[in-house]
Amino acid sequence: MTMKVAVMTGIGKTAFETRPIPEPKDDEVLVKLEYVGICGSDMHYYETGAIGPYVVKPPFVLGHEPGGEVVKVGQNVKHLKVGDKVALEPGKTCGHCEFCREGKYNLCPDVVFFATPPIDGVFQEYVAHEADLCFKLPENVSTLEGALIEPLAVGFHAANQGDAHVGQTALIFGTGCIGLCSILACKARGVTNIIVVDIMDKRLDKAIELGATHKINGLKEDVKRRVFELTNGRGADLAIECAGLEQTTNQAIHCVRKGSNIVLVGYSKTGKLTLEMSLALDKEVTFKTVFRYRHIYPMAIEAVASGKINLKGIVTHTFDLDHVQEAMDQSISDKANIVKAVVKIC
Amino acid sequence: MTMKVAVMTGIGKTAFETRPIPEPKDDEVLVKLEYVGICGSDMHYYETGAIGPYVVKPPFVLGHEPGGEVVKVGQNVKHLKVGDKVALEPGKTCGHCEFCREGKYNLCPDVVFFATPPIDGVFQEYVAHEADLCFKLPENVSTLEGALIEPLAVGFHAANQGDAHVGQTALIFGTGCIGLCSILACKARGVTNIIVVDIMDKRLDKAIELGATHKINGLKEDVKRRVFELTNGRGADLAIECAGLEQTTNQAIHCVRKGSNIVLVGYSKTGKLTLEMSLALDKEVTFKTVFRYRHIYPMAIEAVASGKINLKGIVTHTFDLDHVQEAMDQSISDKANIVKAVVKIC
Amino acid sequence: MTMKVAVMTGIGKTAFETRPIPEPKDDEVLVKLEYVGICGSDMHYYETGAIGPYVVKPPFVLGHEPGGEVVKVGQNVKHLKVGDKVALEPGKTCGHCEFCREGKYNLCPDVVFFATPPIDGVFQEYVAHEADLCFKLPENVSTLEGALIEPLAVGFHAANQGDAHVGQTALIFGTGCIGLCSILACKARGVTNIIVVDIMDKRLDKAIELGATHKINGLKEDVKRRVFELTNGRGADLAIECAGLEQTTNQAIHCVRKGSNIVLVGYSKTGKLTLEMSLALDKEVTFKTVFRYRHIYPMAIEAVASGKINLKGIVTHTFDLDHVQEAMDQSISDKANIVKAVVKIC
Amino acid sequence: MTMKVAVMTGIGKTAFETRPIPEPKDDEVLVKLEYVGICGSDMHYYETGAIGPYVVKPPFVLGHEPGGEVVKVGQNVKHLKVGDKVALEPGKTCGHCEFCREGKYNLCPDVVFFATPPIDGVFQEYVAHEADLCFKLPENVSTLEGALIEPLAVGFHAANQGDAHVGQTALIFGTGCIGLCSILACKARGVTNIIVVDIMDKRLDKAIELGATHKINGLKEDVKRRVFELTNGRGADLAIECAGLEQTTNQAIHCVRKGSNIVLVGYSKTGKLTLEMSLALDKEVTFKTVFRYRHIYPMAIEAVASGKINLKGIVTHTFDLDHVQEAMDQSISDKANIVKAVVKIC
Repeated sequence: MTMKVAVMTGIGKTAFETRPIPEPKDDEVLVKLEYVGICGSDMHYYETGAIGPYVVKPPFVLGHEPGGEVVKVGQNVKHLKVGDKVALEPGKTCGHCEFCREGKYNLCPDVVFFATPPIDGVFQEYVAHEADLCFKLPENVSTLEGALIEPLAVGFHAANQGDAHVGQTALIFGTGCIGLCSILACKARGVTNIIVVDIMDKRLDKAIELGATHKINGLKEDVKRRVFELTNGRGADLAIECAGLEQTTNQAIHCVRKGSNIVLVGYSKTGKLTLEMSLALDKEVTFKTVFRYRHIYPMAIEAVASGKINLKGIVTHTFDLDHVQEAMDQSISDKANIVKAVVKIC
Repeated sequence: MTMKVAVMTGIGKTAFETRPIPEPKDDEVLVKLEYVGICGSDMHYYETGAIGPYVVKPPFVLGHEPGGEVVKVGQNVKHLKVGDKVALEPGKTCGHCEFCREGKYNLCPDVVFFATPPIDGVFQEYVAHEADLCFKLPENVSTLEGALIEPLAVGFHAANQGDAHVGQTALIFGTGCIGLCSILACKARGVTNIIVVDIMDKRLDKAIELGATHKINGLKEDVKRRVFELTNGRGADLAIECAGLEQTTNQAIHCVRKGSNIVLVGYSKTGKLTLEMSLALDKEVTFKTVFRYRHIYPMAIEAVASGKINLKGIVTHTFDLDHVQEAMDQSISDKANIVKAVVKIC
Repeated sequence: MTMKVAVMTGIGKTAFETRPIPEPKDDEVLVKLEYVGICGSDMHYYETGAIGPYVVKPPFVLGHEPGGEVVKVGQNVKHLKVGDKVALEPGKTCGHCEFCREGKYNLCPDVVFFATPPIDGVFQEYVAHEADLCFKLPENVSTLEGALIEPLAVGFHAANQGDAHVGQTALIFGTGCIGLCSILACKARGVTNIIVVDIMDKRLDKAIELGATHKINGLKEDVKRRVFELTNGRGADLAIECAGLEQTTNQAIHCVRKGSNIVLVGYSKTGKLTLEMSLALDKEVTFKTVFRYRHIYPMAIEAVASGKINLKGIVTHTFDLDHVQEAMDQSISDKANIVKAVVKIC
Repeated sequence: MTMKVAVMTGIGKTAFETRPIPEPKDDEVLVKLEYVGICGSDMHYYETGAIGPYVVKPPFVLGHEPGGEVVKVGQNVKHLKVGDKVALEPGKTCGHCEFCREGKYNLCPDVVFFATPPIDGVFQEYVAHEADLCFKLPENVSTLEGALIEPLAVGFHAANQGDAHVGQTALIFGTGCIGLCSILACKARGVTNIIVVDIMDKRLDKAIELGATHKINGLKEDVKRRVFELTNGRGADLAIECAGLEQTTNQAIHCVRKGSNIVLVGYSKTGKLTLEMSLALDKEVTFKTVFRYRHIYPMAIEAVASGKINLKGIVTHTFDLDHVQEAMDQSISDKANIVKAVVKIC
């Protein structure tokens, strides 16, 4: 009873190991994984070996966006049965710290999260996971979509933090996976006008395909002038910054209406940003920030099931588990073409 | 330069008068009306001569849901020009009382509102109205839809008060015009599951046609049992009560999840309701109430323009101005068939 | 190693038992109790044997407002040590249901709560309790005050639900223990004007002593007229209803400004209230309800420690454990004089 | 019927002019001024001639923190009479733009604000002002305090934006006038622990005198270490940054608990700040900003009248109108001693 596991053995290197299939505890289910998405953080660990204080000690398993099928059920589990398709929320929290008790469990200091060192991720055939974190997919939602609920949850948390709503014009900077998921979340929340800004035309086209109403190539156009043209001089009602750049964050400050929310999702390379804060004060802007997400999975699954958003549409490339090294290498080297890659496990 | 005006001359009676076309003041525009909806309150004044302290003194003009075209512009008006199609928000507020200053202008004690005695309404060919209350319609929104923005605004205010959102199951009692508009507003805000309750099958079918996902005929089915079946035992996340009945309000208390919002929109006949409040306390329910609306017109017009909701679909009957008496009489006598009637002015 | 336990042996009857002192589990502490307050629900079980679906099976231990000293510490407990004085939050929740995860743990369906059948309360010498629910008292807060944190928590939850704040005039109906605690919570949140309504003069005097700014005896004065006089015709900004009566709840609707919150805390005897809901709709009132509390203990302890409120002041009578029967009997028979009784355990 | 007016005639220069006493319009009152505070922005205009796009054209009248007595009443004014003492809110807004209608009138683009070029301020004997912006002072509130309601309003808006509340530890950077007013506002809202950070000991002592519970001199102590000591390792629940510095803003990011609000009030000299935003994202911090204030005057006057805060206590120096030049010069040159100066007009 063993399974194949893809492990990162060093910077830019993967290999395969054979490990025993885990046994689910009383409150867990065993899931046969079908799809696992590749996230920017997976690429970052793979390229550099660390994100901030989190350092990879090989052999380490990447991957934290899983979807699969329940194949075994712990004895206390009531809401799932063998054969159920599920999306797995990757973070297990303590349930009794101040943050957990207040409902902000994404801030739990004792969280155990797939593929955040030293906790292994799920580029592997099976995983035993807390049943309360495994959300059943309706019949019309596939396990590929189940895997993609994870990045969609980040997009929804961004849209929630920004209070995205009907009648607004939202401005989204950066159309990588999280930017695209922010578009989908804004759409699901009723936002009708979505302006996207990026410097790669293929990504902008993908954004339009998924529901953005206007695109701006920041290399070719004056972003601020264009936003004010598109909004008849009003400015945007909301900005979501997924690029992690000083320039785009300042563009956000310039482009929003007074009193608006700017949601910061992208991390800057240096950890710092030089921002035009006096202008932000004059406009009484609020900056909300995003760390993972909370309370999103059921809502996001409903949104996908209702057919309102095209979550599958964010995937540009699929690799099988045997080709995980190519999946990682190409995702890193060809960002203009690979917006989102997914690993098909079986 | 005169116009035709339909006046209520007594209970259940209308006649026509000829009056001068008004001249717009500096901050006003003159609008040639094209459509005016018939609202439940119009019918109530027509049938009984009064609503609470507001008593009709004939001759009185009913109608407060207007859409039309700008034909003359006051000299201080900048955002509108002759030829613009507009929806008219019917209430002019003082702008400087506590409620206005706090942004709750719908509670302004000095509001002047079409067809609320002694202020005349707009079953007539022209009206001069404050330009700031005339909202330009995009090309793909008709003046019929413009007229219907008014009841849609009530639906949106209800959905806003209840914080309707993605992933929820909303339960709507009463599928008259306001109930239908609440469905549309919930849809626009991203609600995916909408259960409607009524006792008239035609209205329930109309609700399904406009986007409700499940219907319950309260005469034929056990409402509570059915709601719990449809929600896998969870109960609804939100209820909007548009029927104004004790029975349905108590059903709302029984059918929602703990911690939910119940939005009360419908007025009871006696002004009183006997409610199971101990159960409401045990469930820590919040009751929000709705008085008209605020800050909705631009958002609602955007929602219609985006094609997400079928506002025209609520209209079941159209009458021309010459047949306004039939319009009123039939709307009152045939509620099973006439969900929403509109008067075509020209 | 045994302890004395006061048990309810039938309606209106108590006796004493000797039971083993419990052993704290790894996540628990053993607390030697010093004070336990007597709550209205204790009296209700004692008088009638049941509250709604919760039925007493004798022998049953009442009491759920405890304060005491830690005398033994489970091996996983880090934040408490022997000798610490603590207030005990009486409800242990599951930590993983939807309500717990959302931070609304007071709505957890699997809560285990002192003195809610079949769970015993704490009219006894010792109790072993989850350490996370035992909140350390600063040096200037006594265990008597620690016991009273429980009713104060209800008052704070009411004030929080109503968003009580600086500059408001709050109107509080009913000046029993919970009404008094609502006064203290409103004061702590900065409310400057607090009008109280009751029919017992002693209770009104106590309310004034604790910080209410105006009192109205509902038997002798016209409540509505007096509230409008005291507020220069504006009405109250907030009402908190702790009497559970139809009359006072309707007075609340009449006395608040448009757009205000009315917080319902008191349970009606029949479970039902006939309310003037059309007036509530005209005023766009929001009704918030209160079921126990959440996230209050640390905040409430801080408020008491800061000296801003006089929590001890609510206690009018103290009994020792040997006289718990008198304590119960007199609390029930002499409501005009006994506002709040506390049992001194040791 | 003339009055003395102090005018700024050039950078660092003042003179006196005689001007006619204005006549109040129908909606205005004429106020005989008694006290006008000197604000940091007055000093900035006086020293440099401009703030951002606002450029002084001499002769220009500074001063926008006025308190005085009504001496004449416009014919439409009902809530004020001759002899009333009033605090004057200095900004007149349009009442019909989007921001005004939404209740965010402080963002009105057409605001007319005392002492913001080209609008004259009130270092003069009389002013005619919109009656709705003149708030009657209760008997126990002086016109000196009336003048100080203006900076207190900024402190309250900061505390409101940050949702300051009972049980929190607030951390306030900068103890000039606005920092002190933020302390008072936090106190009024029930905050029990207030840690202040500055580099001038006299200001820190003043802060403690007014209610701060702990002081940190940023030149002599390690701010972060000290804050974590004072909070038993938890960090602050809220930070209000009134210094406008990169260093203190980054200290705020380091010192708050996860999920907290940081309120930015102080303007940086360059308009820009380089901030550790990745840390802010990891902690899911929200940055709220403050532009003037809204809806504060009545609440702030109530708070002062209730005796909960010592508003007069912020004033360290008083000058009469004839010595306005010394008042300005010394306020600029001796910041270590003059925390807040006020001009006594009569």
